[in-house]
Amino acid sequence: MKTYADLNTPERILLGPGPSMVHPRVLRAMAHPLLGHLDPEFIHLMKEVQELQRFVFQTENEMTIPVSGTGSAGMEAAVANLLEPGDTIIVGVNGYFGERLCDMAGRYGGKVVRLEKPWGQPVLPAEVEAALKATPAKVVALVMAETSTGALTPMGEMAEIVHRHGALLLMDCVTSLGGIPVKIDEWDIDIAYSGTQKCLSCPPGLSPLTVGPRVRQLLRDRKSKVANWYLDLTMLEHYWGDERTYHHTAPITMNFALREALRLVQEEGLEARFARHKAHAELLWDGLEDMGLQLIVPREYRLPTLTTVAAPEGVNEADVRKRLLEQYNIEIAGGLGAFKGKAWRIGLMGYSSRKENVELLLSAMKKLL
Amino acid sequence: MKTYADLNTPERILLGPGPSMVHPRVLRAMAHPLLGHLDPEFIHLMKEVQELQRFVFQTENEMTIPVSGTGSAGMEAAVANLLEPGDTIIVGVNGYFGERLCDMAGRYGGKVVRLEKPWGQPVLPAEVEAALKATPAKVVALVMAETSTGALTPMGEMAEIVHRHGALLLMDCVTSLGGIPVKIDEWDIDIAYSGTQKCLSCPPGLSPLTVGPRVRQLLRDRKSKVANWYLDLTMLEHYWGDERTYHHTAPITMNFALREALRLVQEEGLEARFARHKAHAELLWDGLEDMGLQLIVPREYRLPTLTTVAAPEGVNEADVRKRLLEQYNIEIAGGLGAFKGKAWRIGLMGYSSRKENVELLLSAMKKLL
Repeated sequence: MKTYADLNTPERILLGPGPSMVHPRVLRAMAHPLLGHLDPEFIHLMKEVQELQRFVFQTENEMTIPVSGTGSAGMEAAVANLLEPGDTIIVGVNGYFGERLCDMAGRYGGKVVRLEKPWGQPVLPAEVEAALKATPAKVVALVMAETSTGALTPMGEMAEIVHRHGALLLMDCVTSLGGIPVKIDEWDIDIAYSGTQKCLSCPPGLSPLTVGPRVRQLLRDRKSKVANWYLDLTMLEHYWGDERTYHHTAPITMNFALREALRLVQEEGLEARFARHKAHAELLWDGLEDMGLQLIVPREYRLPTLTTVAAPEGVNEADVRKRLLEQYNIEIAGGLGAFKGKAWRIGLMGYSSRKENVELLLSAMKKLL
Repeated sequence: MKTYADLNTPERILLGPGPSMVHPRVLRAMAHPLLGHLDPEFIHLMKEVQELQRFVFQTENEMTIPVSGTGSAGMEAAVANLLEPGDTIIVGVNGYFGERLCDMAGRYGGKVVRLEKPWGQPVLPAEVEAALKATPAKVVALVMAETSTGALTPMGEMAEIVHRHGALLLMDCVTSLGGIPVKIDEWDIDIAYSGTQKCLSCPPGLSPLTVGPRVRQLLRDRKSKVANWYLDLTMLEHYWGDERTYHHTAPITMNFALREALRLVQEEGLEARFARHKAHAELLWDGLEDMGLQLIVPREYRLPTLTTVAAPEGVNEADVRKRLLEQYNIEIAGGLGAFKGKAWRIGLMGYSSRKENVELLLSAMKKLL
């Protein structure tokens, strides 16, 4: 019988589009003995995770929970619960995750209207307004931080437009939450989800989700059952609410981790955390430009959390990544879709966003290029 | 601003229906630094997890993967991928999880035929045959080990009957895998799923799933897209297969944990592990009967992994559980559904199945009753 060695993972410096590095305190939290999912101690911890999630989402939304899957499960929870067959959804498609939203919406019987922008560009408020004038819709779905391109879609004015046209605003904040400002209440976002493994620096496995009052009303008014049992928000609401009606067994250890990761965010403070992400991103950008490299997204819409860099002519981008990993234990990523083979994606998220990581990466890239 | 204390979980002795206690080696595996989900080291680890899952499922099925959600996500993956709208599914309903299968199947447009048995009884082969004769079906879904009742449905002869009637056999082995024999290939099961937090003694968060050749053919022959993006097995097949096509970010740390939990199963050996579960269950049963307590499921169909005990007349079952938890740090569970307020559920699964736990529980219950 084949035998398997002790786990012996190398210490990687994770500077890709996620997962980011996990703070040692979060790793230690995961080593705690398990609690039952109905244990009063765990139910208390669930409440704390919800409170801390509200803090990082900057919201008072009661229905703020971690979905028991990765960020894609949060995306699917939002889509599946908002749409009933035949509903129209306008999706901003300026990268890979906009495409994914379209795929999911189609599976739930949505009529999908694509608001397309070239990869690397943001979706702008005037474009959303024009799309709504052309096609009335029930939902507008936008990816605030496109992980595939590094472009930031400005969200502050979107809700006013969307609500004036009688629609609801769904926001993907997977690569923004905890790294740049995400203001659910001030921006009046109706539903938003993120992932744990980006700027929150917790291992992947949960998807922080927040649901505003308009969507809670919609859930009560739905004519059909949500076409997804695991992600049915009404059932999840009863599980995470005061009733604690059994639904599924929450990933307990992952909730230990998320609680600790969110405590770290709270201890640092949101403004200080955003300033740290910005400062290290600027250090990276300056260094890359000093090397003559071209950053794909214009500065105005460039995400501090994820930078896309054009691979210079004649350079094999995959080979550079391979050597970064093998020689320096540094992980960065290649492009997806339209950027495949043409770009690098460098993430500076959460615990990965440290000056020493930026300096090391720049120094290593100089040697390799 | 409210502050949150260091995580400080009590050391519970988990003798409920899951989660079970986690071996210290599994907890330590989770404290390893994170890898990227496309890191060659992680991809190698994914292969090992698949191999070890095949070992515990006793199968050669290539498509054997952990679904990135809890056991309910595995259940939904099986249902969503097998059914297209209008398909007939016969579901054995002899407890809570059979009910859940019906709910899920309805959401995917399935015509649900309920094969009902009283709670606490198994579903028998002759009953499955009679149901198929009465209503031809595409799928028969059976819960091998009903976590809500402690009844074992014998699976060895089911596939021959189901296949003879042109149907496929879906098996829930959440509370059996790793605790009692689960022989996917010998029993010719078409699709089966489990949870990590039962007899595998790994924290909840993944659902081991195995897919046989008939279901792989069905996936290729489907007319409609699977009405669930996150759990689309064809996409997951490409992610876990040699292509490694990006789908979602696997819960990396949970995969570290599952690998270690499965290594522990392999080191112990399946037969030794099953014998341990049986021996400790018999010790528990004898002790409970010596106390004059009545076990609900007849011995022939009684699960060694989960025992339901009738609460005696005049005893407040919830109060006994509360005192077990508060005075002894022991968790057992109450009844669900038909057994609510009337029964205790005592699990002896994985690392929880130890002689000292049985002795302590019996001793504590004697004092409390």
